[in-house]
Amino acid sequence: MVGGNVSASDDLVRAFNVGIPALDRDFLRTWHRVSTVVHRRIPADDLNYGGAAGFAPLREAIAAHIGPSRGVRCRPDQIIITSGAQQAMALVAQLLLDPGDRVIFEEPGYHLARCAFAAAGGAIVPTPVGDEGLQVPAGMAARVAYVTPSHQYPLGVRMTARRRVQLLEWAERTSAWIVEDDYDSEFRYGSRMLPALQGADRAGRVVHVGTFSKVLFPAIRLGYVVVPPALVEPFARAQLVNGGRPPVLEQATLAELIARGHYARHLAKRRRRYANLRGVLTSLIRSRLSAHMTVMGDDTGLHLVGRLGPEVDDRAVADRARKAGLSVPPLSIYYAGVPAIFGLVMGYAHLSERSIAAGVAKLAAILDELAAGPAR
Amino acid sequence: MVGGNVSASDDLVRAFNVGIPALDRDFLRTWHRVSTVVHRRIPADDLNYGGAAGFAPLREAIAAHIGPSRGVRCRPDQIIITSGAQQAMALVAQLLLDPGDRVIFEEPGYHLARCAFAAAGGAIVPTPVGDEGLQVPAGMAARVAYVTPSHQYPLGVRMTARRRVQLLEWAERTSAWIVEDDYDSEFRYGSRMLPALQGADRAGRVVHVGTFSKVLFPAIRLGYVVVPPALVEPFARAQLVNGGRPPVLEQATLAELIARGHYARHLAKRRRRYANLRGVLTSLIRSRLSAHMTVMGDDTGLHLVGRLGPEVDDRAVADRARKAGLSVPPLSIYYAGVPAIFGLVMGYAHLSERSIAAGVAKLAAILDELAAGPAR
Repeated sequence: MVGGNVSASDDLVRAFNVGIPALDRDFLRTWHRVSTVVHRRIPADDLNYGGAAGFAPLREAIAAHIGPSRGVRCRPDQIIITSGAQQAMALVAQLLLDPGDRVIFEEPGYHLARCAFAAAGGAIVPTPVGDEGLQVPAGMAARVAYVTPSHQYPLGVRMTARRRVQLLEWAERTSAWIVEDDYDSEFRYGSRMLPALQGADRAGRVVHVGTFSKVLFPAIRLGYVVVPPALVEPFARAQLVNGGRPPVLEQATLAELIARGHYARHLAKRRRRYANLRGVLTSLIRSRLSAHMTVMGDDTGLHLVGRLGPEVDDRAVADRARKAGLSVPPLSIYYAGVPAIFGLVMGYAHLSERSIAAGVAKLAAILDELAAGPAR
Repeated sequence: MVGGNVSASDDLVRAFNVGIPALDRDFLRTWHRVSTVVHRRIPADDLNYGGAAGFAPLREAIAAHIGPSRGVRCRPDQIIITSGAQQAMALVAQLLLDPGDRVIFEEPGYHLARCAFAAAGGAIVPTPVGDEGLQVPAGMAARVAYVTPSHQYPLGVRMTARRRVQLLEWAERTSAWIVEDDYDSEFRYGSRMLPALQGADRAGRVVHVGTFSKVLFPAIRLGYVVVPPALVEPFARAQLVNGGRPPVLEQATLAELIARGHYARHLAKRRRRYANLRGVLTSLIRSRLSAHMTVMGDDTGLHLVGRLGPEVDDRAVADRARKAGLSVPPLSIYYAGVPAIFGLVMGYAHLSERSIAAGVAKLAAILDELAAGPAR
């Protein structure tokens, strides 16, 4: 295969799986080329167990990157490298929660993060997300509030500046922790960048979680947590005990990629590609599916939600779609309680324009058929 | 650098750090060469999040290897791939324990495993290790017993066949779990191989933990747990939630290395090297340090314990040694309670013969000086 495009064989993942970036074989080759140098040069000492908080040059590279790109304000020693965002979430839950502590959690929300908090003994309080993001629970005390302010998962809305200020004030007043999951924030198309909550936090209440799964590829299993200075030591110790430290050679390779500018170039390239694919999908939904769904959320990320009418059983649609070879998770499964909105969650970043068109055509047939009444 | 030996620059790690294998640059090159092929061939689908229990070909390769080499009896689907032994231990602790559950733990024992069980809420019961290994607590009920039967950490003794049978019977009778930490068992020099406890377990009470840190290098962060069939599903789910899955490209590379026989050849080569180094160290201890210490433990692994007399403060020796540029952890720090034996834990696998000789000479001077009475 040639030239940086994703080959036919790399487009096997089904429309419209969620949260999967496109695999860029060119970038994988760059990764490997850089790792060759890293393998050759790395000192023997660095191939031992290494520091609990992660490989120092990677912590420095991340700190230098997320300042300008995400408005995160931190020193390198506030960064703990993790084995991806989920391992970060487990670490955060383990450290911030005692059994029975309340966790304000976005409803609908990211189920695997919810599981991590529940596994650590948290009492989940599902809290509605509206057009402005999480509705800040002014009167409620909780140990933690989990939010995805840059691109709510799964709805896709962006938390407004007003809500952000309210949330930060609430956390400061009640001594709660805000866990900011910044999973795909680097993909923003057109609309204005809102910096991370972490950057506006004056009281040291925000724990910021980032991942490389979306910009690079999920199998890489590298992420990070940015913590207030007082939490650095306990986080590093817990990371040692729970064995979450990722392999040093991968950390060193990523540090080198960021330092050499490969990461920024790759990101820019991906951003253009995904902006185009999002445009293709939203246009097709508007032209082919407007009788059934409307596009929700902000112009950002790797997925969108096609909102269905309240009379439509989104699980039945998803089930029928699955039989037709499509993967479109129903919105209702992201609720811990009773769903308030129905729809389909649709990832597009890993697909070709052709696959998107074919997927939308299949979906149109299914929705038309279901709207016409029960089969037979 | 040339020819498979460890270069001078790779011998920087101090004598006698514990648990560190020699870095083999030749093997690192082989690893990288194989990973080149893996990078080129891996299907896009495999670079997504992947299965919760790990990369299937690696699970198959491990099952095929540990049967003959360690006497572990399992199917590939009983293997969960982890990010090293410590992550495995955290996973095991999280799944097998409820807060307050008793954990029978070797005394002295491996502190980081003890921390993992304590972090999961376990009530640690330090249980003496004698010349035959852990003294099986016939009358006591506990949820878990943690053991290192092939090479007790840190004492180096091997659990006898009699004790193994008693331990298995105890676990079956009391429905307890035995956690077998098989951390450096593949390094056995001369003495007869005793298969893993897991292979003798007829009641499905043993959870077996293995790691690649010792045969390859610690920075690789790859290990595994072998669980009874009934635990496969909960372990895989917990691994998904806690984010412990290691990177797929590393898993695929290791699978390929094992399948092509590189792993077995590397292991054989290391075994010869370490057997020689162990011989050098024990000879030097006998010739230069016999007035102060005796060598404990079985002819296996990457470290030994030099036992000191009961009148010697091993922490003071270690402290003095540290100032002289030696790292020899005192045995007493491995006790949760009051130490019963004093000594120095000495790793040798990462050193050259020259470094071992120099280290022993320094240590002789220190011990002679301390025996002569307080300085000044």
